[in-house]
Amino acid sequence: MRQTQLFTKTRKEAPSDETSKNAQYLIRAGYVHKELAGVYSYLPLGLKTLNNIVSVIRQEMNAIGGQELLMSALQDKELWSRTDRWDDAKVDNWFKTELKSGGETGLGITHEEPLTRIMSEQVSSYRDLPILAYQFQNKFRNELRAKSGVMRGKEFMMKDMYSFSKDNDAHLEDYNKIREAYIRIFNRLGIGEKTYVTFADGGIFSDFSEEFQTLTDSGEDVIYVQEGKKIALNKEVYTDENLAKLGINKDELVEKKAVEVGNIFHLGTRFSDAIGLKYKDESGSEKSVVMGSYGIGPTRLMGTILEVLADDKGIVWPKEVSPFAVHLVRLGVNDTTVKFADDLYNDLKDKGVEVLYDDRDARPGEKFADSDLIGIPIRFVISDKTVAEGKVEVKMRTSSDSQLVSVEEAFKLI
Amino acid sequence: MRQTQLFTKTRKEAPSDETSKNAQYLIRAGYVHKELAGVYSYLPLGLKTLNNIVSVIRQEMNAIGGQELLMSALQDKELWSRTDRWDDAKVDNWFKTELKSGGETGLGITHEEPLTRIMSEQVSSYRDLPILAYQFQNKFRNELRAKSGVMRGKEFMMKDMYSFSKDNDAHLEDYNKIREAYIRIFNRLGIGEKTYVTFADGGIFSDFSEEFQTLTDSGEDVIYVQEGKKIALNKEVYTDENLAKLGINKDELVEKKAVEVGNIFHLGTRFSDAIGLKYKDESGSEKSVVMGSYGIGPTRLMGTILEVLADDKGIVWPKEVSPFAVHLVRLGVNDTTVKFADDLYNDLKDKGVEVLYDDRDARPGEKFADSDLIGIPIRFVISDKTVAEGKVEVKMRTSSDSQLVSVEEAFKLI
Repeated sequence: MRQTQLFTKTRKEAPSDETSKNAQYLIRAGYVHKELAGVYSYLPLGLKTLNNIVSVIRQEMNAIGGQELLMSALQDKELWSRTDRWDDAKVDNWFKTELKSGGETGLGITHEEPLTRIMSEQVSSYRDLPILAYQFQNKFRNELRAKSGVMRGKEFMMKDMYSFSKDNDAHLEDYNKIREAYIRIFNRLGIGEKTYVTFADGGIFSDFSEEFQTLTDSGEDVIYVQEGKKIALNKEVYTDENLAKLGINKDELVEKKAVEVGNIFHLGTRFSDAIGLKYKDESGSEKSVVMGSYGIGPTRLMGTILEVLADDKGIVWPKEVSPFAVHLVRLGVNDTTVKFADDLYNDLKDKGVEVLYDDRDARPGEKFADSDLIGIPIRFVISDKTVAEGKVEVKMRTSSDSQLVSVEEAFKLI
Repeated sequence: MRQTQLFTKTRKEAPSDETSKNAQYLIRAGYVHKELAGVYSYLPLGLKTLNNIVSVIRQEMNAIGGQELLMSALQDKELWSRTDRWDDAKVDNWFKTELKSGGETGLGITHEEPLTRIMSEQVSSYRDLPILAYQFQNKFRNELRAKSGVMRGKEFMMKDMYSFSKDNDAHLEDYNKIREAYIRIFNRLGIGEKTYVTFADGGIFSDFSEEFQTLTDSGEDVIYVQEGKKIALNKEVYTDENLAKLGINKDELVEKKAVEVGNIFHLGTRFSDAIGLKYKDESGSEKSVVMGSYGIGPTRLMGTILEVLADDKGIVWPKEVSPFAVHLVRLGVNDTTVKFADDLYNDLKDKGVEVLYDDRDARPGEKFADSDLIGIPIRFVISDKTVAEGKVEVKMRTSSDSQLVSVEEAFKLI
């Protein structure tokens, strides 16, 4: 896409009330617009980035047999009353509103209840199980404070998967399959090394549950990590008793700030019992379905990836996340230079390369600063000088050096 | 996808409170689940269908230079007060809710206000115009009655595009470009012939506005059409004065029921003046941006396409809409028959054909009834008999005849 056509522009300053690095950079580079505290709109660059994250997650969910659906935001009060999660005294972050047709509704904070009801109408036999179902859907949570940019929103995108299995053993198989898929996702998104499978409170179903925590000073959580062995515990389970149970030496652990980028829960039969999700087993007797739930927030991930990888010049996107593969920057306005850059732009597009073409007539310093801020992994610079040699200057966003190469070689570097 | 893996099943009956054909068929075939009156979740078949509709619209919006973004559902009360559209006395279908952080928010019924504000931060010169921006986003409208299935929801998907132009002439150019794109969309979605560009009330900006109305008895609107000349007027402008103005003879018009599948509005400078969206023209003087807005509801379209094309056996999807290109139905459980069908399934998948494979061990009558209900355009039947001849029985959903052809010929028919 030509930058002169893109309706967003970069800006020197972010709103003064944005204290998080992710929101500051995303707003300055034109990725998001702040609507309200904790509520963001995704502008073309931001939506493309978000879609790339969604696409990686979707591929991994489909690869393990996940079936995608899309549930509603508006929720049925009566259904949530059955699991005792409607009452504000029990769940304190609902947005609730009145229906003109009578009664009250709320905006989905999560979707165990509606999906369990859907499955209760579809599942009847052990032959129907297991089922892995997931969606990308906007959740609404009435947060008191929102100061972490897109990492904690009142309205945010969630990929929520739910597993339905015939017993605990089958459940653990599904759980582990999803756990492995999560590890692949964080690796592909460039934050694998910084992301720890972290022991957390297991609730009533098991000693521990697991959450995925990514180390960053912008995180709101505190975890205790053993970096060499990739072991981590969150604050709520950091007790001498648990450390003994896990065989971990307290002296080896270091306190770190982190953000929860994914969580995986054993739900047992809590929801299937309350809502009536049963099946007939091989012998014909009726059993409750064993469930699990698994969340990853693509919008939070976008903020986390930014926080982990950005430098003081701006955003640094990994390849699979970046809204464009190449940032083609033209310097100079000579006819031959413009033609060389235009031709290269068309060549890249013809070869299916996603390219942002800075075809603006602006100063080189401004163009480079914008390019650093926007954070596309590879930059191709075309100037009167490179055109004279018939070459392209290539610079990786993560490197300070550039190299002058032929067009053919430049293509190979993508 | 193998039907034994699909988590939905067909059912004999829809809920008794569903009176619309679209909701009855969509629920029975496993496309949607009803959460509340006027609120539906999209199950795997339904989401695939919806995504196909979205994909056609997106292609046409991108082809005319549309830039996609994604705005929030949660809205800023202060912003909507500036255009006097917050007050319930002025706009009566808001869902409003309290923010725990203080104040009130509402769920977006449309997005002129937030997008105008976004543009006011991006546009400064005539060089920045025109801009066409659009999104696929869920709207929320607090409807009193919801009896038309997915054709009128309290929560529904909308493609809303907005145009930003420097003056009225430039606006009309953009408007006509979008109008043509809409006509292409309805043609591609199989309802072009039944869809009329219909004169409607122009509000304060022009004599008439235009809406796209599709003829169907399930529609909630009444329009007056001249079928030969493809002229139509909606009820609000059906006056002798307007007929004279348009040069239409009243006797030629027939009253028909229809559903509004798209609308296109001239907005003038109402929103840009109220919110402060201005630009500097060629001479340096400040002007207000001229706007238009353009809506198509993909979920409503899904219901409309169904209503227009379905028959008494079930759904009939056009090619570009159907969740799968081919329904491969296996009859018989002989090893050779199963192997033939499995191989054909894998061949189809390898060639990139979207195929639903009915690999269930069920009676032929049940399988055919389900296949008719689900509505995929082409059916391939593999039975002991066809396998003995090394052939495939091919039947179009819209035809009562089938033909026995070779595998190669069957592929060509897709």
